[in-house]
Formats: sequence, structure tokens, C-alpha cells
Amino acid sequence: MEKNSKKSALHEKDGIPQPESFSQSALEKVVRSRKIQPGSEELVNGILAGDIAALSRAITLVESTNVTHLAKANEIINACLPHANKSVRIGITGVPGVGKSTFIEAFGKHLTSLGKKVAVLAVDPSSTISHGSILGDKTRMEELVKDKNAYIRPSASGETLGGVARKTRETIILCEAAGFDTIVIETVGVGQSETAVHSMVDFFLLLKISGAGDELQGIKRGIMEMADAIVINKADGDNINKAKLAKTEFNRALHLFPAKSSGWIPTVSTCSAYEKTGIDAVWQTISDYLELVKTNHYFEEKRKDQNQYWMMETINEQLKNNFYHHPEIIALLEQNKKAVQNDELSPFAAAMILLEKYFK
Amino acid sequence: MEKNSKKSALHEKDGIPQPESFSQSALEKVVRSRKIQPGSEELVNGILAGDIAALSRAITLVESTNVTHLAKANEIINACLPHANKSVRIGITGVPGVGKSTFIEAFGKHLTSLGKKVAVLAVDPSSTISHGSILGDKTRMEELVKDKNAYIRPSASGETLGGVARKTRETIILCEAAGFDTIVIETVGVGQSETAVHSMVDFFLLLKISGAGDELQGIKRGIMEMADAIVINKADGDNINKAKLAKTEFNRALHLFPAKSSGWIPTVSTCSAYEKTGIDAVWQTISDYLELVKTNHYFEEKRKDQNQYWMMETINEQLKNNFYHHPEIIALLEQNKKAVQNDELSPFAAAMILLEKYFK
Repeated sequence: MEKNSKKSALHEKDGIPQPESFSQSALEKVVRSRKIQPGSEELVNGILAGDIAALSRAITLVESTNVTHLAKANEIINACLPHANKSVRIGITGVPGVGKSTFIEAFGKHLTSLGKKVAVLAVDPSSTISHGSILGDKTRMEELVKDKNAYIRPSASGETLGGVARKTRETIILCEAAGFDTIVIETVGVGQSETAVHSMVDFFLLLKISGAGDELQGIKRGIMEMADAIVINKADGDNINKAKLAKTEFNRALHLFPAKSSGWIPTVSTCSAYEKTGIDAVWQTISDYLELVKTNHYFEEKRKDQNQYWMMETINEQLKNNFYHHPEIIALLEQNKKAVQNDELSPFAAAMILLEKYFK
Repeated sequence: MEKNSKKSALHEKDGIPQPESFSQSALEKVVRSRKIQPGSEELVNGILAGDIAALSRAITLVESTNVTHLAKANEIINACLPHANKSVRIGITGVPGVGKSTFIEAFGKHLTSLGKKVAVLAVDPSSTISHGSILGDKTRMEELVKDKNAYIRPSASGETLGGVARKTRETIILCEAAGFDTIVIETVGVGQSETAVHSMVDFFLLLKISGAGDELQGIKRGIMEMADAIVINKADGDNINKAKLAKTEFNRALHLFPAKSSGWIPTVSTCSAYEKTGIDAVWQTISDYLELVKTNHYFEEKRKDQNQYWMMETINEQLKNNFYHHPEIIALLEQNKKAVQNDELSPFAAAMILLEKYFK
């Protein structure tokens, strides 16, 4: 392009000064109020009384990287534990674009209309939104966020999925102690996050939309096997027939998978979160599931297994963290990785050299 | 039952003395010969010259639990490494009854008829057959065991899959250094053994037979996704039509899985290991696969990834071993597991108590 000293026809005037997009005085108030740190007993009492401010503060402690905060968080969690567990935990996954937020809003509103108290959490290890963010996911669920029987908390941020998942898992306990009886955990499905969510919920729901006909291509490995229900969203207007076809195809595909140890046969249904149709049927499916697994005791067995799994996962994660962050290991690891790639060292010998150094 | 001092009508006479079922002098010879321990240099030279006795001795060292033997095994493996890797590694899985041994015998004979040198190994963590067993799997492959271009070694025994897999992986290196250009690794599919075998081979083959029509039910989770080829065995006699139907059904099912990063589209074929039909086609499929992945460099990338994976796996396994076998941890672990199950401790808090004790 030719350089032109004259102003382009597309040039816009500077315009009038805009007001600040946030209130300075409100910000100062938030910062000031955060400096007052209530004790853990006070927070526990607040949580058990259903005080949302106390719940939010406790979750902030859970999400903190500060060692003092973590110790306090542990105290609170252990005090809340006997009051937790009286809920149903529902995992919801689906790729971006299937309408997860619209669905969760419609689903959540349906649940609160039935007199339930709903907490919506998220596991998104790619999230960079800090826990203090005033906006975040909430703007996407305008109705639910105003509902006094709903509590929405965006994903904790963190470097590892393990860390994010741990924080979400502890947040579940706090929400349950605060009286929330239905916990919805959303995941965007980055990396192994579905597996992490699957291992902390009672019921796992895969949200889909009907596509170009070849519905099953492009579904992430293992997701179909984890799903207790597949719900095809956006079954409205011109989409209704396509959604019905997709339902048939998913039903056929589900037959290919081995029977679930819960005894439950996964279901496929259609809904329109936008038109609020088929939402009640989703809750009915979950109720049917709960009736089955509470009768055959799979529900409590699974929760016990999940608790044990998370204890072991935490241990294994920490053992690895300690090893791979060891200053002497970091350098030697890179060196040995190269030697293994170039066939100068067997993988086993390379591992042994590192382990000997680590255990001294 | 009433006690009866008279001999029952069912009583059998003691009979004549039986000859010993093994030759005492042969046994002594074996024991004597085992006492002579050649040095690692001697064994390496033997292996590189293609000496089967040296190869077998080295594998016995790899399989040993003796620390001195392991150190010697490591020396040998590292000396063999530059001479390894020039092979194709094929994993074969299938439930008992599909005719794995008959298939491997027919397949192996076909390969040696093409001038190839074939080593047959196994990963079976349930195996209690000691490495010194003279019989084992070999009796099931009468033709192949007599073939001078074939070497059959039963599975190492071991308490953990990790241990058995490590030994098999190192045995691959030794076999390759001894000039075997085609390594077949069989697994019976106990626990996670298919995943272990999948992570040490270039090509993964699932052997099936046609069943009662509902072919896909009962297939273990994840197996279909790992398979590069599904081969339906026993396609002979009355079975031919059923096998063809099964082939159609598997082909349809394979379409449901996401595309492979190798760019390879898994194949389904039928064969009769008994009548030796369709065996050459299996090798043709593998050859086609190799041509593809050597052209698009997936072959070497996968091997590099596998090496790195095994280094990390070995480290992670040892870190866990060290922790879970720690005497102070064992008792506390049981105690904390119970506390977690009874909701007296959060999984995270329980893990932290254990980790603090471990790291002192």
C-alpha cells in the first residue's frame, strides 16, 4: 500500500471521553473487604447456615496457592465433611458450540423450580480466569445467576488438571455442606478433564448437537463409554429431524459398548435448551438412574471408590511432582531423554540412573 | 458317611511302579550347565553372532530378580541397543479360544518361508511358569518351535504387569540384536496387558472368531480403538459365512472411532489358521501399514514416543513402589483409607498426612 499523509476516508474521530468501565470506589470496597479474614470456625458456621459469602470465601481458600490458606481450607473441609455427601453430582461435557451454558441454565432453572438448590461448578484446566474474577462464566447464565437457589462458580485456574480437579472436588464438599443438593460440574473436555470429572460425579451426561450426518466421527476417545446419557441439544426448528436421526445413530452406537457395572443402560434423548423442551425428561432420566443405583447400592459403592481413587491420585501426583521438580533431576532427565531417543540408553537404564540419584 | 473297615468296591490296587517322568541325568546336566556363568561381553558377542543359547541366557538375566543379574542384564542391553530397532514389532491379542497359538504358528511359518527371522514373546502377568520351564507355550506351536528361523519364549513371570512388561520390552531389544527382524508379542489380555503390549509394538492386531451374531458385545474397553487390524480366525467349513458377517459388522463398528494419528485406516479380514488361508493377506496388510508409516515418519516418531513413555512409566512405577512398600506408610494407609471411606477425612487431607510422613 502507498503511504498517504492525508487522512483516509475510513478515519474516525477520537470521539468523546468514555466513563470508566468499572467503579473505582466499588473496587476499593472489594479490596478492603478481602483484607478482613474470618477464622475457619466462623466460615464453617457460615457455610452450614447456607451463607453464600462464607462459602465463596472458603472456596477462595481452597483455590489459593498460599500454604497458610491451604491449611485453613483443610480444616474447613474436614469440618464440613460430615455434612456433605447428601446430594447428586452430575457431570456435563460437550464441545464448545453445543450450548452447554444455555442447557445448564435451562436445566438449573428447572431444578430450582422443583425446589432444589443447585451449584454449578466447572473443571477447565485451560482457564486463566482468576478465582476473584467478578464476571467469568456467570454472564452466560443470566437467569440462573439471579436465582437465589443457584450458585455458580467458574473453574479454578491452575497449571495442572490434577490441581484444578482437586480444587473442584473440595468445592463440591463445601457446596454440599452449604445445603446445595444438586451439583452440576461442567467441563469443556480439554485433555483428560472428562475423565477427571467422571471420577467425581454420580451421573455423566454428554451433550451433543446433530451435525452433518456422520454424528459419531470426531467424538473423543472414551467419552461414549463414560456417558450415562447422551442429550442432543438444539432440537428445534429445522433441526428437529436431524436431531431425531442423530438420536437413532447414537442409540445404535451405544449398543456396541460393554454393559455398565451400574446395571444402567445409557439413554439418548433430544432437547432444546433454547425452547426449554426435553429438559424435564433429562431430570427424569437422572431420577430413574438414581432409583436404580440407590437400590442396587452402586451409588454408595461408587462414591467410596471415588474417594479412594482421589486419595491415591493425590498421592501419586505429589510423588511425581516431588520427583520431576527436584533440581538435580530436571537437568539429568533432559539428558537421559535424549540418550533414550538416540538409543544410547535403554528406557529402563535411564530411569534407574534417575531414581538412584533421587533416592541418593 | 458310615465308617467301613472293609475295602470299598471302588478300591484300586497300587499298581506297578511307574518310571520317572523325567531323566535324572538330563536334569543334572541342565543344573550343572547353569552354574557356568559366561561374562556379559561373551554373551553380547554371542547374541550379535545370533547364538540362541547366549540369547536365552541373557533373557534369563533380564528376568531375574537378583540384583547382580540385573546389573549384568543392563550392561548387555546397553551394548545390544545400537544393534536393535531394525525390526517390525507386532502385537497380537485375543481372548482364550480364538486360536492365538495356531494363528501365530501359521503366521510365523509364513514369515520364515519369506526368509524372515521371527521371535515370539508373550506378556502374561498371570503366568506362573518360571523362565526356566522347558515346556510352556512351546508345545502349542509344534511346527514353529522346530523352525531354526524362529525363537519362542514364554512370558516372564512376575507380580506386576509393569515388571512383566519391562522384561518383555528388554527381551525385544536382545532378540533384535540377535538378528530377529520380526517380533511377535502375544498377550492374553489380562488386566491392562493389551495397553502395555500396544505401547511396545508398531502394529497391533486383534484376533477374533465369529460368535453368536452379536460380535461386538463383550469386547474389552478400548481394544477396538487400539487395533490396526482385526482378523477373524476360524473362517473355515460351516463358519465361513458367519465370519463374513462378523467382518461386515466389525467394519461398520470401526467407522465409529476417531481417525488414527498414524493416518492408517484399520482393516478387517478373515482367515483360517487351521487351513492356512488368509494368513498371507495379514502380512500384506502389515506391509502396507509399514510402507505408510515409514513414508510419513510416524513409525520412528512412535518408537521415540514409546521409549520415552517407558522411561517415564518405569520412574512412576518405582516412585509408587517405594512409597507403598514403605513400612510406616503401609499401616497408616489402611487407617486413612478407612477414614476416607467413612467421610472422617477428605481424600486430599488423607493423602497429605501420608505424604508428610513419607517425606519426613
